[in-house]
Amino acid sequence: MKDTMTNQLDRIFHAQSVAVIGASRDDKKRGFQAIRTLLDEEFEGDIYPINPNEDMVLGIKCFRSILDVEKPVDCALITTPAKTVLPLLDECGRKGVAGVVIIAGGFGELGDRGRKIEQEIVDTAKRYNMRIIGPNTSGMISVVNRMNLVGIRNVPKGNIALLSQSGNIALNLITEAQLRSRQGYSYYVGVGNEADLKFHEYLNYFANDKNTKAIVMYVEGLREGRKFLQEAYKTTRHKPIILLKSGRSSTGMKSAGSHTGALAGISEVSRTAFRRAGIITIESADELFPAAETLACLPPIRNKRVAILADGGGHATIASDLLTDLGIEIPALEDSTVRKLREILPPNASLRNPVDVAGGTDSNPRIFADCARILLEDKRVGGLLIVGLFGGYGIRFSESLTFMEEDAAHQMGKFIDKYNKPIVLHSLYNYAKPHSLELLRYYNITVYESLDVACKCIGVLSQYGAYLKKYQQRSSFILNWKSKANVKCQKIISGAIQEGRASLPEHEAREILRQHGAPVPEDYLARTGEEAVALARRIRGEVVMKIVSPDILHKSDAGGVRLRLKTDDDVREAFNGIMESAKKYNPKAVLEGCLVTPMVDRGVEIIIGTKIDDQFGPVIMFGLGGILVEVVKDVAFRVLPISRKAARAMMKEIKSAPILNGVRGEPPVDRNSIADLLLVVSEIVESYPEIQEMDLNPVIAFEHSIAVVDARIILKKKANGKNAHNGK
Amino acid sequence: MKDTMTNQLDRIFHAQSVAVIGASRDDKKRGFQAIRTLLDEEFEGDIYPINPNEDMVLGIKCFRSILDVEKPVDCALITTPAKTVLPLLDECGRKGVAGVVIIAGGFGELGDRGRKIEQEIVDTAKRYNMRIIGPNTSGMISVVNRMNLVGIRNVPKGNIALLSQSGNIALNLITEAQLRSRQGYSYYVGVGNEADLKFHEYLNYFANDKNTKAIVMYVEGLREGRKFLQEAYKTTRHKPIILLKSGRSSTGMKSAGSHTGALAGISEVSRTAFRRAGIITIESADELFPAAETLACLPPIRNKRVAILADGGGHATIASDLLTDLGIEIPALEDSTVRKLREILPPNASLRNPVDVAGGTDSNPRIFADCARILLEDKRVGGLLIVGLFGGYGIRFSESLTFMEEDAAHQMGKFIDKYNKPIVLHSLYNYAKPHSLELLRYYNITVYESLDVACKCIGVLSQYGAYLKKYQQRSSFILNWKSKANVKCQKIISGAIQEGRASLPEHEAREILRQHGAPVPEDYLARTGEEAVALARRIRGEVVMKIVSPDILHKSDAGGVRLRLKTDDDVREAFNGIMESAKKYNPKAVLEGCLVTPMVDRGVEIIIGTKIDDQFGPVIMFGLGGILVEVVKDVAFRVLPISRKAARAMMKEIKSAPILNGVRGEPPVDRNSIADLLLVVSEIVESYPEIQEMDLNPVIAFEHSIAVVDARIILKKKANGKNAHNGK
Repeated sequence: MKDTMTNQLDRIFHAQSVAVIGASRDDKKRGFQAIRTLLDEEFEGDIYPINPNEDMVLGIKCFRSILDVEKPVDCALITTPAKTVLPLLDECGRKGVAGVVIIAGGFGELGDRGRKIEQEIVDTAKRYNMRIIGPNTSGMISVVNRMNLVGIRNVPKGNIALLSQSGNIALNLITEAQLRSRQGYSYYVGVGNEADLKFHEYLNYFANDKNTKAIVMYVEGLREGRKFLQEAYKTTRHKPIILLKSGRSSTGMKSAGSHTGALAGISEVSRTAFRRAGIITIESADELFPAAETLACLPPIRNKRVAILADGGGHATIASDLLTDLGIEIPALEDSTVRKLREILPPNASLRNPVDVAGGTDSNPRIFADCARILLEDKRVGGLLIVGLFGGYGIRFSESLTFMEEDAAHQMGKFIDKYNKPIVLHSLYNYAKPHSLELLRYYNITVYESLDVACKCIGVLSQYGAYLKKYQQRSSFILNWKSKANVKCQKIISGAIQEGRASLPEHEAREILRQHGAPVPEDYLARTGEEAVALARRIRGEVVMKIVSPDILHKSDAGGVRLRLKTDDDVREAFNGIMESAKKYNPKAVLEGCLVTPMVDRGVEIIIGTKIDDQFGPVIMFGLGGILVEVVKDVAFRVLPISRKAARAMMKEIKSAPILNGVRGEPPVDRNSIADLLLVVSEIVESYPEIQEMDLNPVIAFEHSIAVVDARIILKKKANGKNAHNGK
Repeated sequence: MKDTMTNQLDRIFHAQSVAVIGASRDDKKRGFQAIRTLLDEEFEGDIYPINPNEDMVLGIKCFRSILDVEKPVDCALITTPAKTVLPLLDECGRKGVAGVVIIAGGFGELGDRGRKIEQEIVDTAKRYNMRIIGPNTSGMISVVNRMNLVGIRNVPKGNIALLSQSGNIALNLITEAQLRSRQGYSYYVGVGNEADLKFHEYLNYFANDKNTKAIVMYVEGLREGRKFLQEAYKTTRHKPIILLKSGRSSTGMKSAGSHTGALAGISEVSRTAFRRAGIITIESADELFPAAETLACLPPIRNKRVAILADGGGHATIASDLLTDLGIEIPALEDSTVRKLREILPPNASLRNPVDVAGGTDSNPRIFADCARILLEDKRVGGLLIVGLFGGYGIRFSESLTFMEEDAAHQMGKFIDKYNKPIVLHSLYNYAKPHSLELLRYYNITVYESLDVACKCIGVLSQYGAYLKKYQQRSSFILNWKSKANVKCQKIISGAIQEGRASLPEHEAREILRQHGAPVPEDYLARTGEEAVALARRIRGEVVMKIVSPDILHKSDAGGVRLRLKTDDDVREAFNGIMESAKKYNPKAVLEGCLVTPMVDRGVEIIIGTKIDDQFGPVIMFGLGGILVEVVKDVAFRVLPISRKAARAMMKEIKSAPILNGVRGEPPVDRNSIADLLLVVSEIVESYPEIQEMDLNPVIAFEHSIAVVDARIILKKKANGKNAHNGK
């Protein structure tokens, strides 16, 4: 059973009929080019040119309006300028069109006025249950349906769906497939302004599309980051997503009052979030198509272990470096493997991994196939990278070697299915287009002239394989708002909102944490010096006193914190001292009194924080207190909610992780309790959508326990139902 | 006046006559191929095939021995196996040959036995004042002399000298020049085992060679790292050196007893050393030739500021990211520039930098030249990157646009000399080889299909320009051994060596530092408890006591350190306690007594260390004490000697640098004194070649002073004259 959206998108991507609104006889106009392309590419459905001023375009009858077409129309392409779009769209709706591609720019990208018109377009489409691609897009191509609404000719057909926020980058990727691959595209969508259909909706469609084996994306920014993650998370279980994200440099960090706010950079958040969703993120445009091609063609590597087969030193050395950088192991080979290789290679060959045939194939390149077979049969080897000169032996030496290379290609090609392990080949002779390399591609072995690219392709096969192996243990990106809310805590937060407060004072934040099971030492609010003395007596050992005031955020700056208080006199004197300092610091501040809490011993200082990320909603940060967070910015981020596994991964991810294990003879800290606390914080954010930021700074960790020493909660500016629920 | 080495290399690279030893009529043999290539490439000098069993090879008279040739022979190529080389080499020497290329492998790369034969070869050559290229090399090509001793055909002639430790990588680079460039090579040398001629000697020759404008190198390891740096430093003032270094992954860190030893990774040292020598280090093999080509063709960028000119968004966004990552500024344009651009571009064009013509050149690509002129006239702009579709307007739209693109190419080409600013172009249509792009190359504008590569080329132009601008202020790599040695210190060190000690005890290390002007607090050696009490009285305030024993390296582990001692009783008790603990820790240790020193206040902990790097000799390390060095590995390295500027740069380079400026309200520390101390340490290492490692840990820094609290000096194992002087 397909849902409504899938049905609509089916009607668009597999349209039986297309209307071209703005059809033209001027060959420089898009309304001409679109029809010509549909004809050239032999679109099998009906084509309806629409233009009130034309009778025929390219030999096809032209209609004055889409409403004049008798038969149903599945898809419409509007090629006319922005100001004409709205009434034309309304006609499409009345006609019952499933989807409309709007080419024109001049909408949301121009600012507020444009956004208003864009919204009208979306509202119109919604009224008719019609979907929109664009506006401000290069268009859409359903290669499988021979329906090309872009005008880029000869788009090679294949198994990769392409989603791009830039027409130029799409042109890049399509050209690359044309020139250097046997793989191609199932669909291309220029998502444009995403006024209606968005990245995650296309993703959902391609995830369930039988023509698509991999999805490649160029993204400058996401409108619905969390929905995108959810959709990606579902998709990558079955199909790889390969993504290039740009726009890093222009995205500055938000300045915010709390440490967390100041430290959480968007690119850091997206990096870990994408990885958790199983998305393969690519840094270099040169690697985008090859990575997609390789993932669409070859089985993933399940054990991160690769053999390198080379002829000569340099390429093997560079490949070893690059694969190591990519987290791939180049394992020692089994003894039997080395024995078998020794039988067929010359004495000066290197039989360790990387294997260097050292000229041993110069008179018989078939030996490459023998080596490949021996290496793939090795249980330690999860995939094979061949580097160097294969494909060029015939060119370098004599034609007869060409045929041997072709034989080797046929043999190696069949190994892919036989061993279910991938082979990626780097060849210096790719430019010469030898037949042997075309044969390898026929068998789905990918071939690259760039050693960097070939290594990266091995890298993504390994990354995807490792992801699939661990998939079950990961958590999804769905927030169950309010699911674990607690009446008492909800009351504290609602009270603060009713009183118009922007944040919760420390004792309220502590109470919420305590209610959710966090290890927060006892605390008491003292309104007078004598009350403080009485409360301090309840606590065994030394106490700490801190100012409580809604108007004082940075307590230490206000002289509002006193440590290690032992005697009644200490406490009394501290109370008066704190109140005086605070009054001096901010004469207008309302001073509620002092919080009296136990003095916590020295231990490892930890900081945990949360904030609302613009694109992904609630995120959590973990780091070690003091200079490591503030100066070295050594922190780990995750999109919430997190699993226990993710909590543990955050602890391992920071550079200062060894401190948690104990340095200089210290014992390790209580990692279980830290993981518990991270999960509690995750649960609290999920329970109270009114929370904007939390800041637990510091938490002190010991060998067998931890203690939250200070906590702060900032509320959303307008914590009304809507804002609160979508977590933005 | 040329020196002897240059004269010898002149005779080799500009040989008037070449002997091919091992000449053959078998076309599969190197001795055949070499002669055929010399003939094909029309080598203008004399060719002498040498083979006792042949009369003629390829129509040329063959000699039984090189000694039978009547005329002088400048250069010989030995193509025969390793075991035959030595007597043939002796004959070359007797004949007065200037240089011999030895192809065969089977020497030093096979281990000790091979190294012995290799040494015999070197000794033989030295006897005759003859130089050797190789052995174990693909050979040498003097393109300017039409002398090809490798067999790679059609090597394009140009201004780049190529030095490679891998024949495959050389083949890669030469193929790339053939396929995608108008630039080419002046020389190629496969350096092989570098038995005699080494990287730095070739560098010296190419530095002074008028045919060479840039030097590109593939390096797996350096034999004479420091000489290489010295030669590179001299060269890069006039000519860029572009270097790809591999072999990172196999180079593990050395495990060593001191912190410095454990932390100094070779790749980190080479990175900063290469940068200081002005070498452009490339990480990706794909970028190696383009970077060399661009630096050989175009003027460097002096102000790190670049304008981007694009048609469409995606490429401009990615380019902005990549250039920003490379440390390049994309500045706002002058008002007059924006005004001039507005006059020629459509209203939807983006006139800020990046400039997006937004289709404004679709009907007239000449506008690219107008935009380029306007941008290059802007004083803020140091160079121009054009990205996207130039070269493809004719292909996409109509032929007439082709001619306009060619006109634009002619115009832009002439801007290079006129403005002395570089233009690098990225074109999606490079694969189609349009004439306009060939024209750009004719004018030395470099053109790439990869956006990453184009950006990297702008990056290296900027990096080299910035280096040249700052060149004067940098320090060379020459160590003036013993130049500032001090009699007292020399005596301490000589004494230790005579006694067979591996390290200096703390008080001796302190004394050496003190003698060279380092701020080391007073210290006294107490041999009894009562002596300790008397000495402690001389010091105002609290004291620290530490065990003095040549057999105890880690004093704290032995219970050999006591802090904050106030009274006579404290001191007496501490002395006895320390001696007891030390005895228990190592009953065989010789205990000389305790060092009594003032207790230094809390401040910022610093670590300074030195060690002898395998490839580069003495290096210095700087970091902040405690977890930042030990856990986060946040350290800066420099090859010694260092300048004051370098000392200051090290302080800025570490991630924890803000701590030196004062965090959490602390005042900044005394950077001048830290710089002084780094220079003192540099001076000490230079003065006493016997020193293997120094470890100043910690040094405590305050607002107006610093204090060395602990110091250790380890001596070289065999601190004899020879080892000591070459610093290895």
